This record gives sequence, C-alpha cells and structure tokens, in this order.
Amino acid sequence: MRFKEFTIEGRNAVIEAFRSGKTIDKLFILDGCQDGPILTIKREARRCDTQIRYVDKDRLDQLSETGKHQGVIAYMAAYEYSEMEEIFELAEKKGEQPFVVLLDNIEDPHNLGAIIRTANQAGAHGVIIPKNRAVGLTATVAKASAGALNYVPVVKVTNLAKTIEDLKEKGLWFVCADMDGTVMYDLNLKGPIGLVIGSEGDGVGRLVKEKCDMVASIPMKGDIDSLNASVAAGILSYEIVRQRMGK
Amino acid sequence: MRFKEFTIEGRNAVIEAFRSGKTIDKLFILDGCQDGPILTIKREARRCDTQIRYVDKDRLDQLSETGKHQGVIAYMAAYEYSEMEEIFELAEKKGEQPFVVLLDNIEDPHNLGAIIRTANQAGAHGVIIPKNRAVGLTATVAKASAGALNYVPVVKVTNLAKTIEDLKEKGLWFVCADMDGTVMYDLNLKGPIGLVIGSEGDGVGRLVKEKCDMVASIPMKGDIDSLNASVAAGILSYEIVRQRMGK
Repeated sequence: MRFKEFTIEGRNAVIEAFRSGKTIDKLFILDGCQDGPILTIKREARRCDTQIRYVDKDRLDQLSETGKHQGVIAYMAAYEYSEMEEIFELAEKKGEQPFVVLLDNIEDPHNLGAIIRTANQAGAHGVIIPKNRAVGLTATVAKASAGALNYVPVVKVTNLAKTIEDLKEKGLWFVCADMDGTVMYDLNLKGPIGLVIGSEGDGVGRLVKEKCDMVASIPMKGDIDSLNASVAAGILSYEIVRQRMGK
Repeated sequence: MRFKEFTIEGRNAVIEAFRSGKTIDKLFILDGCQDGPILTIKREARRCDTQIRYVDKDRLDQLSETGKHQGVIAYMAAYEYSEMEEIFELAEKKGEQPFVVLLDNIEDPHNLGAIIRTANQAGAHGVIIPKNRAVGLTATVAKASAGALNYVPVVKVTNLAKTIEDLKEKGLWFVCADMDGTVMYDLNLKGPIGLVIGSEGDGVGRLVKEKCDMVASIPMKGDIDSLNASVAAGILSYEIVRQRMGK
C-alpha cells in the first residue's frame, strides 16, 4: 500500500531518532568510523536490534539526499493514510456489509498494530483513528500489525463523533465497548457496523459514546479492571464475525 | 500472591540488569554522585522510565543487604509459581468446572502477561507453562498482566504433553488452537477444559497437539497469516465463556 521510506542523515539526527523511540529499519555507517557519536549510534542500534551496514564514502554520498550525512544515514519507514471511500469500496468489492473499527484514544503503537492485524483477520474493511491523539503509522505499528497494514485502509479523521454521524447516514450502526453495556452476546451486531474501541484507562469518550446506537460489554469474571485494548478489540470483533456467520 | 522483591547492588550489577532487559521497579542513587557509571545508570533509567530516588549514604547503607552498594541499589520484582492443586481448589471454591489455559512456546513476557490478564477475566482458574522455555514471572509479566498475576495461579511443568495426560484423568478435555482445526463455534467447549495456545511462529507442538481431544480454529478472513498470540487466546477463551453462559 501507501508505503514510504524516509532517510535521516547526520549524527545528531540519527541519535535523536533512536532516543525518541523511532524505529530505524536500516542503518548505514562509514566503515572505520570510531568517534564518540558513532559509537553512541552503534550502541543504540544494538539495543534496538537495528542491522548496521558498513559502507565506504562513495556509497554514502550516493545514498545521501542532503549531501551532509556525516558518515551515517538511517532509513525509517512510514505508511500513509487512506481515504474514507476506500473502506466502502473494499466492502463493496467483497460484497459484504461494511464493518469498520474506530479507535478512540488508542495511543500505544503496539496496540494499534495488533488491532489493525485483528481487524484484517476478522474481515473488517477499515480502521478509523482521530487526528489529534493518534500515533502515526510508523514501522512499529507496521511490525505489530504483522503486515496487515498493507491491506487494511487506515483513515485519520478530525472528529470521531462527527464521523460517526456522517457514517450513520451511510447506514452504519455503531456499537461501543463499555463495562456498563449490554452483554455483547445479547446484541444484534449483524448489519453494517462500526465498532468503537476506547483506551484501557479512559474507555470511549463521552461525546463519542453518546453517538453510538449500542453499548456492548464483554463479561468480566476476574478480579481486575479491564482487558488489554487489543484483546478486547479482538473479542468484540469476533463476536461480530460469529453473528455474521450465523453461528 | 507469591510476590518477592530482590535487590541488586553495585554499579556493574545494576547496569547489567538494565542492559539484559530486566525491569527495575525502584532505583536508589547516592545524592550528588556524578561519575561515568552512575551517569550510565541514570541514562538507562530514563530510557526505561524507572523512577530514581536520590538518597544520602545513611539511607543506602540501611537499605543495603550486602554492604557493598557503591552508591546504587535497584529493586526488582519477581513472582513465585503455584502448585497444580491450587488451580483445582480455586475451581472448586467457585463451584465451577475447571478451566485452565496451557501455553506452549509462548516466550514473550508481554504476551504472557496479557494472556494471564485475559485468563483472569474469562474466569480461567489457572495458567500452565512448560519449564524449559518459559519466561519467568518478572515485573514485565506482572505489569502486562495488569495485576492479574496476583489472582491467577501460574504453574510451571516439566512436560506439557505429560501434564495433559495427567489432567485428562481428572476429567479435563483439551482443545488446542490451530488453523487446520474445526471452526471453534462448532465445537462443544462447555465441560471441564484445558485450552492450549501455541506461539505465533510455531503454533502448538506436534506432541502436545496429538494429546488434545479437539483442534479449534478461529475463522481467518484476512490477507495475513495469524493473530497475535494474546489476541487469539482472548478470542478462544471468550468462546468458552459464551458457551458456558449458554449464549
């Protein structure tokens, strides 16, 4: 899909990228370089399991886009967002009722990736995330999605509540997950549907929840508060799968 | 439950603990200490979000168990394993059919923690892991379990296949997750049950799979290979919950 590769050039920029938690896919270092900043970069690379390739100056000059690589060039991956239409086109192409997953306040890239992966396996046609808080579609998200990011359209919207209103006009019903809802097995989740998942700490926001047609709960038999957000998304998505299969 | 705290004392030991990925819960450093190894420890602590408390020498001497703290003491948490009997006692106490989750080849501490968390919420009475490969019940597992590790007995066994044989004599039925199995909605998972989850890469081992009475599959509608192990465990656990609720 909409895959892009960025280069980061220069010692401080590369160190900064590692320190800020960005995932570097490939790292090129000038062969023989042994000074302090380069050693720091090597240490960070080892810590992050980033593969290092030692190359000569000609090769670096060739790879460089800025001409100021200072002996080091890093490659970072990022994915691009889709347009809302692509979700509905995908559903139509498959001859299925639209099924979208909306994420309110999910900020952890591992959770985002795992949810995109689950959405793909559960046959969802897209994932919608709000612009303000969302993590980007970084290599960490891509890795946690186990490749699903290449198949599931991910759409970024300005206002999730407004988007729900718009999509209701397209015939979608919305169900959000919350502990005080109806047990999910007792709801009818068969039609064109939007499943709204909130963060572990805060759940689904009040404004978004008010827009939803149904509130679904997962039966909780334990001694603790909640489930991991990506596990909860998986359990709810597969309740939709079960009902759609008529099981 | 069976919670223990360990201290690590001395500069190299603490640096080594950080570098080997161990989770340090608390870190005490001698106030005013600024030399190289201490700066390294501070940097590692920042990287791992470990809270640092600066204390005076008297306080460190008081905390020290070895008397050789070199200006730094770290606290690490670890949990102890349960005995098999505790699982069945818990089921009996609750007046429920036993429900245990067995993990074959799950090595990632985040997955292990998330599965323990889900097991608790799904009402499972225990989690069984094999001795040879298992990750320990570290603070990382405890954190990922969101506290569930305090409630769910986790039992370590030498041979998972042998354990399955033993537990069959106690009346348990075993179901393992595999892509080539029967769709889970079509299996009867209501009785006393052991749910076997394999790793993402390798699935359930052949010897273990052969001991199982049923093989369950999660419907996969996507373009990729599999689900995250903790998500798959959640979906299967809640299919057992649904059937037990008679829904």
